[in-house]
Amino acid sequence: MRNVYLAGVGQTAFGSYKGSVEQMLLDASLEAIEAAAIGEFSAIVVGSMSPESFGGEAYISTKLVDFLGLTPIPAVRVENGPATGASAFHMGWHMVASGQYDGVLVAAGEKMTHLSARRTATVLGDILSQHDRALGVTMPALVAMMTRLYMAETGLTREQLALVPVKAHRNGARNRKAHFQKEVSVADVLASPLVADPLRRLDCAPLSDGAVAVLLTSKSQPVRVAGIGQANDLASYALRADLGGLAATRAAAAEALRRAKKTVNDVDVIETHDAFSPLELVNLEDMGFFERGHAVQALEMGELDLKGGLPVNPSGGLKARGHPLSATGLAQVAEVYLQLAGKAEGRQVDAACGLAHNIGGFGTSVAVTVLDMS
Amino acid sequence: MRNVYLAGVGQTAFGSYKGSVEQMLLDASLEAIEAAAIGEFSAIVVGSMSPESFGGEAYISTKLVDFLGLTPIPAVRVENGPATGASAFHMGWHMVASGQYDGVLVAAGEKMTHLSARRTATVLGDILSQHDRALGVTMPALVAMMTRLYMAETGLTREQLALVPVKAHRNGARNRKAHFQKEVSVADVLASPLVADPLRRLDCAPLSDGAVAVLLTSKSQPVRVAGIGQANDLASYALRADLGGLAATRAAAAEALRRAKKTVNDVDVIETHDAFSPLELVNLEDMGFFERGHAVQALEMGELDLKGGLPVNPSGGLKARGHPLSATGLAQVAEVYLQLAGKAEGRQVDAACGLAHNIGGFGTSVAVTVLDMS
Repeated sequence: MRNVYLAGVGQTAFGSYKGSVEQMLLDASLEAIEAAAIGEFSAIVVGSMSPESFGGEAYISTKLVDFLGLTPIPAVRVENGPATGASAFHMGWHMVASGQYDGVLVAAGEKMTHLSARRTATVLGDILSQHDRALGVTMPALVAMMTRLYMAETGLTREQLALVPVKAHRNGARNRKAHFQKEVSVADVLASPLVADPLRRLDCAPLSDGAVAVLLTSKSQPVRVAGIGQANDLASYALRADLGGLAATRAAAAEALRRAKKTVNDVDVIETHDAFSPLELVNLEDMGFFERGHAVQALEMGELDLKGGLPVNPSGGLKARGHPLSATGLAQVAEVYLQLAGKAEGRQVDAACGLAHNIGGFGTSVAVTVLDMS
Repeated sequence: MRNVYLAGVGQTAFGSYKGSVEQMLLDASLEAIEAAAIGEFSAIVVGSMSPESFGGEAYISTKLVDFLGLTPIPAVRVENGPATGASAFHMGWHMVASGQYDGVLVAAGEKMTHLSARRTATVLGDILSQHDRALGVTMPALVAMMTRLYMAETGLTREQLALVPVKAHRNGARNRKAHFQKEVSVADVLASPLVADPLRRLDCAPLSDGAVAVLLTSKSQPVRVAGIGQANDLASYALRADLGGLAATRAAAAEALRRAKKTVNDVDVIETHDAFSPLELVNLEDMGFFERGHAVQALEMGELDLKGGLPVNPSGGLKARGHPLSATGLAQVAEVYLQLAGKAEGRQVDAACGLAHNIGGFGTSVAVTVLDMS
């Protein structure tokens, strides 16, 4: 198994974008190529969840090759629900690690803000299992049920939970690519409209437009892919044995750390999938960074802040950086790269090893990536 | 780069299927697992072009894991237009070759016969470039133009061209999984309705329902993946420098043969993408098996028959086996495997090395796979 390194990353500003997803993928790719110390690559992986139904465009991987003017370089698309970004990155890793390609460009993007609220609800509903859909639940409703269970079990209060988006927005305010670059208070969170009790609007990540690109290479570079791990769980939350956490997160993180020959103690910075506030706490505990119910204490003590001992979501996370479904997982990897490479501008932390954790569905598929300094 | 072997294949009957694409993927997967000498695998790749817009189902890779009852095994979907099947196979190869997984199940399928003629036309139109679509052409029209050019240049006659589907149907009649299991004559081809002059209905592959699964393993097995190659071309046929053949076929075949350390002289059997009759001849010449304009002589002399020196499309090809877009590329690989493994039942040829050639779009992306005996 040969080493695979990150040579550079690019990212569009997340938020609302007027052009096509192909144009965003091109913008992010050109930025990654320009940023990379080593520019050569001989294959492209595109991550996008459903350009056919979101944007009316099929066969999108061929369009990026065309736009870049790089034929005969081959391209393929990878899709894994909202875990598409990290899955595309993992495929790029396999393509370099296999020895077939010395360089692979991975670009992931989604454009969704043009969809109607009704269409967006359908898109998000389709991610759930047919079984759960038949019960009438929505994604926020499922997370709300887990949150109630978690609060009852651990004693977490509604006010404590609000500290998650407060931190996310504080970090996002320092990220010029973030969808939301303004701070919010606990009072703001508690005053925001109820979505699914106890979750309020400021507990929920937005849907954004955005694209990210990462250039992978077999040539030695400062930041390396140390290990990857991926796992699936039953699509139906209702049918799972354990409703308190996400088993796929546990399995994927354990595999990525094992492959990287690391433990949680080696990890200096984390990007985790905070599509809803409680998930940041649940994820950190599922991955073994804290005992069950204890992550909130670290949050309260500032341990998860940019200047804390274990910064979490320095980019602003899904909540503040934004959540363009497919782009999210790759944005997490890009953020960990920027932090390790010392290129994180106003939100720089001190880190030599970082972990990115990307969820699809409600934990139906999870992809975890560990980067370190080579 | 470690060796990757095929442990077993499964395939649904191609044609019209009442159930969902997920059910077909499950059927093919169970058959592959049962057929395999070594059954272990720890990841799944699903190939499907657009289950969202064709069948209203999203996040389809998670459904196959669920149906197989194999959580926490991870799964991802790969899409590359009508080259999806071979691209998914290549991704499975990368995932084993990288050292991360010792076994990977690749399953590809499409269900399209339930779509209206109008919807089907849209689906096929979407595969073309926006540029070509704006000119009003369809896929058969593009191929017809290339065919006219080829006939003018090489002197190929309309009657000679009819020998391609005649051979396809003769082979398909011996394949119990084929969509069409009946022979046709030159007269039948010439009497079939005109689609796009000079192409007639019996020159065009049908759209079918179908799924195929292949189990890949790092453990030594009789049939090995010798080499893979993939290439893209401009999506717009109108903008390409050479209209007489497909540059992506040339590049992908050259790479696959180079990786396999083989030449065209080593190849004993070929599955090539005969979505339209002339493509079989053009493809064989693009890949270097014959000089320009000479493939038809081999066809006329029976060289490409099951008992000839270089059997081509022993399965019946896209024309007779059927063409469930995503499944096609994987069906080609499965056929070459069955031929090499001596499991091709009534259509067995004598082969120790075979090549599968899968086209996406009108040569926009091409994936070539070379298998040999280990």
